[in-house]
Amino acid sequence: MEFTVGQIAEVLHGAVEGNGDQRIDRLAKIEEGQAGSLSFLANPKYEPFLYSTGATAVIVSRTLELRQPVTAALIRVEDPYTSFTALLEFYQQATRTGKRGVEEPAYMAASSTIGGNHYRGAFSYIGENCKIGADVVIFPHVFIGDRVKIGDGTILYAGAKIYAETVIGRNCVVHAGAVIGSDGFGFAPQPDGSYRTIPQIGNVVLQDNVSIGANATIDCATMGATVIREGAKIDNLVQIAHNVEIGRHTVVAAQAGISGSTKIGDFCVLAGQVGLAGHLTLANRTTVTAQSGVGKSIKEEGVFLQGSPAFGLRDSLRANAIFRHLPDLERRLRLLEQNGRPPEKP
Amino acid sequence: MEFTVGQIAEVLHGAVEGNGDQRIDRLAKIEEGQAGSLSFLANPKYEPFLYSTGATAVIVSRTLELRQPVTAALIRVEDPYTSFTALLEFYQQATRTGKRGVEEPAYMAASSTIGGNHYRGAFSYIGENCKIGADVVIFPHVFIGDRVKIGDGTILYAGAKIYAETVIGRNCVVHAGAVIGSDGFGFAPQPDGSYRTIPQIGNVVLQDNVSIGANATIDCATMGATVIREGAKIDNLVQIAHNVEIGRHTVVAAQAGISGSTKIGDFCVLAGQVGLAGHLTLANRTTVTAQSGVGKSIKEEGVFLQGSPAFGLRDSLRANAIFRHLPDLERRLRLLEQNGRPPEKP
Amino acid sequence: MEFTVGQIAEVLHGAVEGNGDQRIDRLAKIEEGQAGSLSFLANPKYEPFLYSTGATAVIVSRTLELRQPVTAALIRVEDPYTSFTALLEFYQQATRTGKRGVEEPAYMAASSTIGGNHYRGAFSYIGENCKIGADVVIFPHVFIGDRVKIGDGTILYAGAKIYAETVIGRNCVVHAGAVIGSDGFGFAPQPDGSYRTIPQIGNVVLQDNVSIGANATIDCATMGATVIREGAKIDNLVQIAHNVEIGRHTVVAAQAGISGSTKIGDFCVLAGQVGLAGHLTLANRTTVTAQSGVGKSIKEEGVFLQGSPAFGLRDSLRANAIFRHLPDLERRLRLLEQNGRPPEKP
Repeated sequence: MEFTVGQIAEVLHGAVEGNGDQRIDRLAKIEEGQAGSLSFLANPKYEPFLYSTGATAVIVSRTLELRQPVTAALIRVEDPYTSFTALLEFYQQATRTGKRGVEEPAYMAASSTIGGNHYRGAFSYIGENCKIGADVVIFPHVFIGDRVKIGDGTILYAGAKIYAETVIGRNCVVHAGAVIGSDGFGFAPQPDGSYRTIPQIGNVVLQDNVSIGANATIDCATMGATVIREGAKIDNLVQIAHNVEIGRHTVVAAQAGISGSTKIGDFCVLAGQVGLAGHLTLANRTTVTAQSGVGKSIKEEGVFLQGSPAFGLRDSLRANAIFRHLPDLERRLRLLEQNGRPPEKP
Repeated sequence: MEFTVGQIAEVLHGAVEGNGDQRIDRLAKIEEGQAGSLSFLANPKYEPFLYSTGATAVIVSRTLELRQPVTAALIRVEDPYTSFTALLEFYQQATRTGKRGVEEPAYMAASSTIGGNHYRGAFSYIGENCKIGADVVIFPHVFIGDRVKIGDGTILYAGAKIYAETVIGRNCVVHAGAVIGSDGFGFAPQPDGSYRTIPQIGNVVLQDNVSIGANATIDCATMGATVIREGAKIDNLVQIAHNVEIGRHTVVAAQAGISGSTKIGDFCVLAGQVGLAGHLTLANRTTVTAQSGVGKSIKEEGVFLQGSPAFGLRDSLRANAIFRHLPDLERRLRLLEQNGRPPEKP
Repeated sequence: MEFTVGQIAEVLHGAVEGNGDQRIDRLAKIEEGQAGSLSFLANPKYEPFLYSTGATAVIVSRTLELRQPVTAALIRVEDPYTSFTALLEFYQQATRTGKRGVEEPAYMAASSTIGGNHYRGAFSYIGENCKIGADVVIFPHVFIGDRVKIGDGTILYAGAKIYAETVIGRNCVVHAGAVIGSDGFGFAPQPDGSYRTIPQIGNVVLQDNVSIGANATIDCATMGATVIREGAKIDNLVQIAHNVEIGRHTVVAAQAGISGSTKIGDFCVLAGQVGLAGHLTLANRTTVTAQSGVGKSIKEEGVFLQGSPAFGLRDSLRANAIFRHLPDLERRLRLLEQNGRPPEKP
């Protein structure tokens, strides 16, 4: 896609300073601007880049006073950050998520319904008795099992797999290869040491505005539902086991894993590769640092945890600082033993 | 699906107490029972819920004596837990794994064979010279490469990917997105620091009753076979490298990773996010706790390991208990140094 | 496939000793050789197996002098290891990567181009305006989004998912289920604690000879590119976040995770389950041992790191050696306190 500086300024209700006929074909950070790219300047700290950038045009504030000559064309607007974000969203929709129509062959059972203005990519599959909303974008190779419900405006990227009975809200995003609703890992040990599979007949519920990362896995509940509440953001390769509940606007970073029946509060942050044991409860606004392993419930809100096993972040940092010097600690102890009064034998 | 209480009682050879015409449309735990749901009471500890549950019906023992009035209809059977599990299995089969027939378009090379009573979902793919048993369920987007063998009754969920030459036994379950038989990670360093790929020509063998979780990955052997023995259960996002062997009825929880050529015994348990180095041997009944990293072989059976690097669970728990208090330990040592006889300079 | 010993010897320009009419249908290690298999002997350490192997034939050096009688046929060549590797590569190509032609139904937008001698498996998908080279192998269920570029000789295994705008070099391998170009995990916190999605409009660039493991995930850049440089090898289930750069011939083992904007040098090795924080720089030839977590940039080349948080490998090994004996250390300190001069109260 290619636009002139003047066309972009018009869309943003901005005023052009410089040559409005130049062509823009991409967006870039101001410090990485090259011919053909459009940048923005919002944070005054970056102003020096304005005078050296190779960008063809830069979005700036109406009130910015130039201290040096600039070679880039300027587009002056009320709020440069908001204008640029609007362009980003427009660009992403134009290039990725704005697809509409049906590519053949695509499979949809006759018993299922889907709202208007949708996209169904080639080789996408929709099973029996599904109810799918309007403005839904279903990329190629998406699998949607029987009796699934999906709200308006949700995007399922290539090869996302939605097991039967799953319920997905509005404006959710499920990235490529994510699996929603696989069987919980439940096996009953038998007297001979083998295992009998416990049937998993529950489902997964994603509320509105939930985002699920690429190749993440969310198991269905044994009975009832595994629930990801409104606005929660789940990163790539995260594992969420059966009957887990994730609170509103909680963030779970890549490769974290949450064991069965654990309930996580609202506004929590689990960093990358964190592991949580099963049947725990984490209070609202709990933060767990990367690679930590949590084995106990947290009742107090706003706690920061670190370590495996995890405890308070402040105490963990202090213990780790000494851990590095354990050989020195041991040497000091040995010297005391040798030079002070030797201990009695027990 | 909807049944009357009376219909369910008939299937279970049970006797109804209360209104047998009420309709049931789901199964639930007794403490979560609502109108339309059926629960069961096996453990006497849960008996109080019998008198307060909102469930429409509850399966109870023939011998249970009521201590209070109940509002739910009762279905009296010999063994409530077994009856309920039978219902769960029936329900799961009816809703998920009971599919039969072929949905078009599905691809199967003319040189391949498949037994009777199977399901091949739309967009499923079966390559050349495969031998696939009867009662096999192949969901949409499953990929089966050339010369693959699959035993009777195995279920492959949506988008499972089975590389050429793989051998899968009877009654296995491979969940969505799992990859079986990808190339082992083998690269020979060259004098200039680059790597030459070592061809991986072995395969993967899953014996009978093996379960593989969603998006798990199992690499083929460099030569010979990567083997998952009978009844082993592998959870979501687990990585199993080339030439690994997993013993009978061993359980590997989510996100654990096993490096190349490691052999794990029978009846072992690896908890979530565990990592094992390559070329190890773990004796039967070894248990490794979550997030631990094992770098040495274990010869004795029945050992419990913890930590990264891992050692005996009991010692690890004691060491971790003191780790938290390292700052205090250091302070005590400093006080001794200051107040006792100071150490000589070395 | 089946060949006679004589046919294989002819291809390798080798000389047969023994029965050249025997049939070979697989390759095996010499210590695992069975009837029908072909092995090789390069390392003198393995010579004893030559006299006991069950293999039908063994490739040996022209200069090898037998010390005992052998039952296997011999194929004498200049360099047994090189000859055997050539067979391995031939075998892998014949059985896996040598496919050519188009299986229907396959989808390719009319605006896209692809070079000669390629394979497009059934249910593979190629979007708009893609430029794909010659000798490219695209397995079933591969998804290639719009405006993707792929160089000659690259192999995409079943169900690999390549988002729009991705650029892939020559002779790359992307294993089954890998996701290239999913959205970076970027969310701007709002005053009410919810998150607004930051559009991710950059892409991913894989240079030549890059290998990506099964179900690995590589996010696109927010703006600009996430870059995997020439010859880098990425294992299964690895997570690479937005704007990361991986240096030439760097190896990243299974389940490692690299957070946003971190730059890793050339010839580095990250072992399994390693985690790296965001915005770091790692110098060339940095090695990080399994399960370690790196939170700081490394400026010096050739450093070995261990632990979570990670520090120098040597210091880490020493600290861990004492960690195990912390209970003993504490006991020794307690004895000193009891038997030496007691510390004053602070």
